[in-house]
Amino acid sequence: MKIIIDAYGGDNAPLEILKGTAQAISELDVTALVCGREAKLRALAEKEGIALSGMDFLEAPLAMPVEAEPTEILKSYSTSSMAAAFKALADGQGDAVVTAGSTGALCVGGTLIVKRIKGIKRPALAPIIPAAKGTYMLLDVGANVECRPEMLRQFAVMGAVYMERVMGVKNPRVGIVNIGTEENKGTALQIEAGKLLRDSRLNFIGNIEARELPLGGCDVAVTDGFTGNIVLKLTEGMGKAFSGELKAMLLSSAKTKIAALLLKNALGGFKAKMDYTEHGGAPLMGTAKPVIKAHGSSNAKAFKNAIRQAKLFCEQDVISEIGAAVSGQQ
Amino acid sequence: MKIIIDAYGGDNAPLEILKGTAQAISELDVTALVCGREAKLRALAEKEGIALSGMDFLEAPLAMPVEAEPTEILKSYSTSSMAAAFKALADGQGDAVVTAGSTGALCVGGTLIVKRIKGIKRPALAPIIPAAKGTYMLLDVGANVECRPEMLRQFAVMGAVYMERVMGVKNPRVGIVNIGTEENKGTALQIEAGKLLRDSRLNFIGNIEARELPLGGCDVAVTDGFTGNIVLKLTEGMGKAFSGELKAMLLSSAKTKIAALLLKNALGGFKAKMDYTEHGGAPLMGTAKPVIKAHGSSNAKAFKNAIRQAKLFCEQDVISEIGAAVSGQQ
Repeated sequence: MKIIIDAYGGDNAPLEILKGTAQAISELDVTALVCGREAKLRALAEKEGIALSGMDFLEAPLAMPVEAEPTEILKSYSTSSMAAAFKALADGQGDAVVTAGSTGALCVGGTLIVKRIKGIKRPALAPIIPAAKGTYMLLDVGANVECRPEMLRQFAVMGAVYMERVMGVKNPRVGIVNIGTEENKGTALQIEAGKLLRDSRLNFIGNIEARELPLGGCDVAVTDGFTGNIVLKLTEGMGKAFSGELKAMLLSSAKTKIAALLLKNALGGFKAKMDYTEHGGAPLMGTAKPVIKAHGSSNAKAFKNAIRQAKLFCEQDVISEIGAAVSGQQ
Repeated sequence: MKIIIDAYGGDNAPLEILKGTAQAISELDVTALVCGREAKLRALAEKEGIALSGMDFLEAPLAMPVEAEPTEILKSYSTSSMAAAFKALADGQGDAVVTAGSTGALCVGGTLIVKRIKGIKRPALAPIIPAAKGTYMLLDVGANVECRPEMLRQFAVMGAVYMERVMGVKNPRVGIVNIGTEENKGTALQIEAGKLLRDSRLNFIGNIEARELPLGGCDVAVTDGFTGNIVLKLTEGMGKAFSGELKAMLLSSAKTKIAALLLKNALGGFKAKMDYTEHGGAPLMGTAKPVIKAHGSSNAKAFKNAIRQAKLFCEQDVISEIGAAVSGQQ
């Protein structure tokens, strides 16, 4: 399996991207097609002692800046490393794309260069978020700021296939993110999407309040991209705030510093569980071939985990299953 | 100052409500008008050894159930303890209402029985949420599921007055909860509200991403009630999930259990800081007289804190200030 890598996406590109890719090749039985400036990347690898076995390169002179308009990936940045990666995927030069670059550009490029699964109206960006029990897939988190009820139905179908096939969750519980559990709660979007989902073959558990999300109240949470983005970013910010408070508490006195020493190992596991970057990337669900967004702040390990996710995505044939489910109006 | 108490609101009513009221009377230099079934409340107080000095009673035979339609407070529950409290406030029998009862009924009753400040289109429910640095007021969290830009402008004015007057924050920073900081981000609501707020005299810092809220990125966060409810409930759920994980970690081995003993005092402070029920209640901003919602799960201490907040609300003359600001089109 060959994973196509955008070498110039994310805060720590290209070094951590290259490192993570090398780790993935040595651990995960994949090869890579790395898009970027080959000569510079080779020089960096030599300097840092990164092995390049299993990597091919695809020359791409530009990097897509985070602050550029997303649609520029089709225009002034059509020769960027991210655009090159999507074109290579569309052309069959590899099996999946992994990028830590601009989310907006990824959504535009994924949708318009890689194209959609037949029948899917709009792809959705769909991170896997850790909860007290298990994880849940949240979709959409920003590809579609405003949504129609039918889109939420499709998000539910895609999320359920992914959680079952890739994450091994049997009969995933699907919920609509809402401000109350009753069927008449929320706006027209939630009410109408609820009707569609009650008529589906999915394991639809109704509305889910945001309070229940981090406690593991469902396996697939569907929502418009505005609300989903708020949920994702708040989850991130709360994690950061808690970690900061916890650290401050552990450093507050001689007694707590001793406690911190005793907790050293346990704290590592605790942080790993609360940190959603550990869980790999966010798939863009609905494109005709797998596209994975690694977190913008990915280090080598997080990027490697995103590559692992891309591999599972391919192996489990998620896209055919979604195509079948959508054409069958599951 | 006389605070009007709904004795039958919340999960722990009437016992914790009565206890919290008694504590407030002894500590805060207030008196209370307690709405409910006087004979039963007196019997309970006697049994539990709760002092009733400083309390008057107002007979109200019914309790407003949480699951009842909010508008029923005007109809079949017009003799409920919550309805009686609002009527007593409107009639000038006390200075503020504190209730831990149904949020929906509180919004309807507050708006239609207590009535609005002149010029205010819609009251907003506005909890004070702890952040890494300070606290922030979030409005609206559910009184208005869908909002117009002008409503967000008024929420901003009300929140800024409150944070300045009651919480002592100089020149409070006002942000619009959004999915990016750029002026063109979000839906028409955020974009248009941004234009109104840039034209205002407020200290408007633009859009604020949800990630920054728990880190203390602003003092007043304005949003529609749907999004605000999601933010509030997710904040609550993350706190619960995090506490659970922390507890599990501290109990995971002999070593961590020793650490837990060493941390005992520090953990108390940590929890208190992260727990937004400690910060008292959520004012319903925009009513002609102060109405405070205590958390539904309030114990005596939380309810007492909500009464403290009601007292400050009255003392600082927040409502006149809002009236002046709104009529001046601040």
